[in-house]
Amino acid sequence: MMLLHNDRLMATSAADPLPSWNNGPAKQRLLAFIAKVTEEGSDSFVPRAERIAVHDNDGTLWPENPMPFQAAFAIDQLSRRVLKEPALGSDPMVKAALAGDMETLLKGHRFEGLMQVLALTHAGMTIEAFHAAVEAWFTSATHPRYGRPYVDLTYLPMQELLRHLRANGFKNFIVSGGGTDFMRVWAERVYGIPPEQVLGSTARTTFELRDGGPVLTKNLDQLFVNDKEGKPVMIHQFIGRRPILCCGNSDGDLAMLQYTTINNPRPSFGLLVHHTDAEREYAYDAVTKSTGRLVDALKEAPGCGWLVVDMKHDWNAVFHDEVSFTTAVPTQS
Amino acid sequence: MMLLHNDRLMATSAADPLPSWNNGPAKQRLLAFIAKVTEEGSDSFVPRAERIAVHDNDGTLWPENPMPFQAAFAIDQLSRRVLKEPALGSDPMVKAALAGDMETLLKGHRFEGLMQVLALTHAGMTIEAFHAAVEAWFTSATHPRYGRPYVDLTYLPMQELLRHLRANGFKNFIVSGGGTDFMRVWAERVYGIPPEQVLGSTARTTFELRDGGPVLTKNLDQLFVNDKEGKPVMIHQFIGRRPILCCGNSDGDLAMLQYTTINNPRPSFGLLVHHTDAEREYAYDAVTKSTGRLVDALKEAPGCGWLVVDMKHDWNAVFHDEVSFTTAVPTQS
Repeated sequence: MMLLHNDRLMATSAADPLPSWNNGPAKQRLLAFIAKVTEEGSDSFVPRAERIAVHDNDGTLWPENPMPFQAAFAIDQLSRRVLKEPALGSDPMVKAALAGDMETLLKGHRFEGLMQVLALTHAGMTIEAFHAAVEAWFTSATHPRYGRPYVDLTYLPMQELLRHLRANGFKNFIVSGGGTDFMRVWAERVYGIPPEQVLGSTARTTFELRDGGPVLTKNLDQLFVNDKEGKPVMIHQFIGRRPILCCGNSDGDLAMLQYTTINNPRPSFGLLVHHTDAEREYAYDAVTKSTGRLVDALKEAPGCGWLVVDMKHDWNAVFHDEVSFTTAVPTQS
Repeated sequence: MMLLHNDRLMATSAADPLPSWNNGPAKQRLLAFIAKVTEEGSDSFVPRAERIAVHDNDGTLWPENPMPFQAAFAIDQLSRRVLKEPALGSDPMVKAALAGDMETLLKGHRFEGLMQVLALTHAGMTIEAFHAAVEAWFTSATHPRYGRPYVDLTYLPMQELLRHLRANGFKNFIVSGGGTDFMRVWAERVYGIPPEQVLGSTARTTFELRDGGPVLTKNLDQLFVNDKEGKPVMIHQFIGRRPILCCGNSDGDLAMLQYTTINNPRPSFGLLVHHTDAEREYAYDAVTKSTGRLVDALKEAPGCGWLVVDMKHDWNAVFHDEVSFTTAVPTQS
């Protein structure tokens, strides 16, 4: 266990549960919602069991630039594999992946290139072997811009929100396009969210007895990409209740924001993290690249009453200053 | 809410958390296991977050005779539908279902008959409509032998076990071949198990906005039958941790018993409910019908150290005597 739970590092303040949020309407709206649904006897009271909060991960709880962190992991795994199997290096899709050429990888109706990279890096091994590879990567890799371990780069204001929600009887779920097996390796230590509350993209493992012992093997059967309309489908399948709070940052989160807030018989809250801070983080999500138009989630936010959190103006800190996770980091063998 | 949680009805006894279990080795082994994994400082201590217990439902937490209760629901739904659409009654598979002719329904590699019945009773409607149909059935239907509502027929000794596990920091999950959506309607009220801890057979719903509001529709896409080797696969996908306690009753539970207890670095416990009591319940599960041989789960139990619970000898009560769930039962319209 080389990672520590962030709860231990965040200063507790009874007076202000969200110290990294600037005082202003965004913070006030969030605090007011949490206060009203937990006030027994009020019309807005929501019983504890129904206080389900869902959070996207990439771009909502931590950055997704210069590329989703899981993609960086996949490229690292691929380059290690090419060292051992040099013939693989001449495969055009492997070449494209190592060059970060997403355009080539995403060609074709079935994304053949991407699937090939996933097959080489996320399938054909036991759950334990995959777990160990993810663990090893997180303890050695650092973010190219910040030079810090990836797990150090969660958004401090969102960590405070997760903690404040938990303290108020909410059950936090991650609902991300990232791989479930990938996120579960560190989500409990980094966010305090146990594996059974981490919903991501999945494929079916296979189960067998090998030498008398149970073995689960990763493969790509029945791959389900947990994005867009897939998110409310997954929330229904895994949780079976409508959330009352949803945090996202992109059109991939639009459907779950709608599912959470439109016609919900319970009081509900939608939140969009808006990436406006090129100095401390990245400023990139106002327009869809292909169309040049405002992304749908931001376009719909005012009409739906979703809170748009402007990173630059609403957060007085983005990351934790302390280097939290570097105690006794083993190097990857 | 016409159903009440059983916790309210069970006599609490600080001295004996399992009063419906006869004093004897079965009860003692169960209590000893729960005591040792919760004793801080002991070598067998298991942290609270890792105390995952998984329970089959049909035949483990309630009866599965004369047929699984969900099959009785499906037949009831089908007969209501035939009343409105008489032409449907001449369909050979509908005929077979209404006659309880499982042999015909299970013919063919893809179980075409069964799939047709599922499509007519478990698909093509919104989640809310399905929920209402299940709710209506449970409040009106009674078991043909006992003449009591189905939800009254949970095994009292297993309810006591669920409660004792919960009181000791275990998280109980249902892992059943039954439909997830079917079980979640009543599992929280009947077992105290919230929807997010109910894992059953699933298919993907579809999500859409209809008249501006979010709608989830049931269908049979990507049907996954949560049985046999599917159970550990589902446990990994939904929970992401190995259970330390597993209760089952048939070969459908063999794989999850193996997954729970073989080579588990944690202390673990396997339990098989053995149906030996023709007077109070049913005596039926010693041999596989097709082969006439002892079922594999019972055959493997001694070697694997699983506790075989003999209903007739180990339980002094099977059901709760009180009629628990009849307060203000509305009739089905």
